[in-house]
Amino acid sequence: MSSLTGPGRPRDPQTQHDIMSATRRLLARDGYDQLSIEAVAREAGVSRPTIYRRWPSKAHLAFDAAFGQRPDGELLSLSGDFETDLRAFTHAVLTFWGDPVVEAAALGILTERRRDPELHIRTQQLLDERTRGAFRALVDSGVEQGRVRPDVDVDMVYQTLIGTAFYIAHMEPDVNAEDAADRLCSLLIHGAGRTQPRKKDTA
Amino acid sequence: MSSLTGPGRPRDPQTQHDIMSATRRLLARDGYDQLSIEAVAREAGVSRPTIYRRWPSKAHLAFDAAFGQRPDGELLSLSGDFETDLRAFTHAVLTFWGDPVVEAAALGILTERRRDPELHIRTQQLLDERTRGAFRALVDSGVEQGRVRPDVDVDMVYQTLIGTAFYIAHMEPDVNAEDAADRLCSLLIHGAGRTQPRKKDTA
Repeated sequence: MSSLTGPGRPRDPQTQHDIMSATRRLLARDGYDQLSIEAVAREAGVSRPTIYRRWPSKAHLAFDAAFGQRPDGELLSLSGDFETDLRAFTHAVLTFWGDPVVEAAALGILTERRRDPELHIRTQQLLDERTRGAFRALVDSGVEQGRVRPDVDVDMVYQTLIGTAFYIAHMEPDVNAEDAADRLCSLLIHGAGRTQPRKKDTA
Repeated sequence: MSSLTGPGRPRDPQTQHDIMSATRRLLARDGYDQLSIEAVAREAGVSRPTIYRRWPSKAHLAFDAAFGQRPDGELLSLSGDFETDLRAFTHAVLTFWGDPVVEAAALGILTERRRDPELHIRTQQLLDERTRGAFRALVDSGVEQGRVRPDVDVDMVYQTLIGTAFYIAHMEPDVNAEDAADRLCSLLIHGAGRTQPRKKDTA
């Protein structure tokens, strides 16, 4: 991690916690564009300078509130059965992007990173390094188990997974995440084409 | 189309054209959050009331500028060969979402539709009715040709296609659309699993 990856950590963990909680509450309730440092300060019971000392802008505040406590551990649990693990990963990704806090923060951050190079780097790191690395380990285990073709286009599967989770979160918010995970995994594993000699589902 | 679907059309086509062109230029150059009715008026050489008479907010202005002239016809061209047609559709979708105007407008509109029911309806109509309808016809032709399994999950394939195009537009803007279309179609048709007896690529 370079000095580009984030603002300094606050010294008081309780203050940090209060600010993050307040930011999450306001993001979920009002959306990103209604969020302001002033509103967060009021909600958290701290002064505006307390926030500005730690975060250079509301985009970075929202980034940490939405993505800072991301449970990477939960995303990747290798049980030894590829399909089970892919389904768990997909479900975790769908649930994560469907979280109202993440959903609201993501749109604002994608907009603001156009003119904030540091924010641009942070989002790329989040998606390119942290999540993609976990996903690559999962696919590798599938290849080892003989469940995934060795020439699989890992990057495209990854982009498809995150992109679809993002689309569903924003455009199909009422979809059941369990059901969507099943359907997306089935498509990604088997494809829509008819070349493979699978038995047709009779349901 | 109900009265909810959009603002009244301007009477002067040249004025309409100038306002749309100015909005597209500013969206591509400055992004959605820097867009203002005032800047569009200046850029188009019209008065602010001229714009406000026709569009209730900058979100609706951006919606029409980005999506109003969408070439639906080009999205769907049925040649009789499913894989060719799917590839053309996918390439068109990737190119469309990768357009800087669309990319910028999409984020702003997704944010603002949270509190603008009319805008919410317009985006759902755009994606649910217009594009999804075209895609369903394409998949039906693939089933008829024996290239797509009859029990295909059309909605999930569609969500995957649009979601991945959105992700690539925002997170992988340097990707070549031809190449991405090939890779995405290959994944969606064949899947990543090893159950099918395809010959492995030797490349």
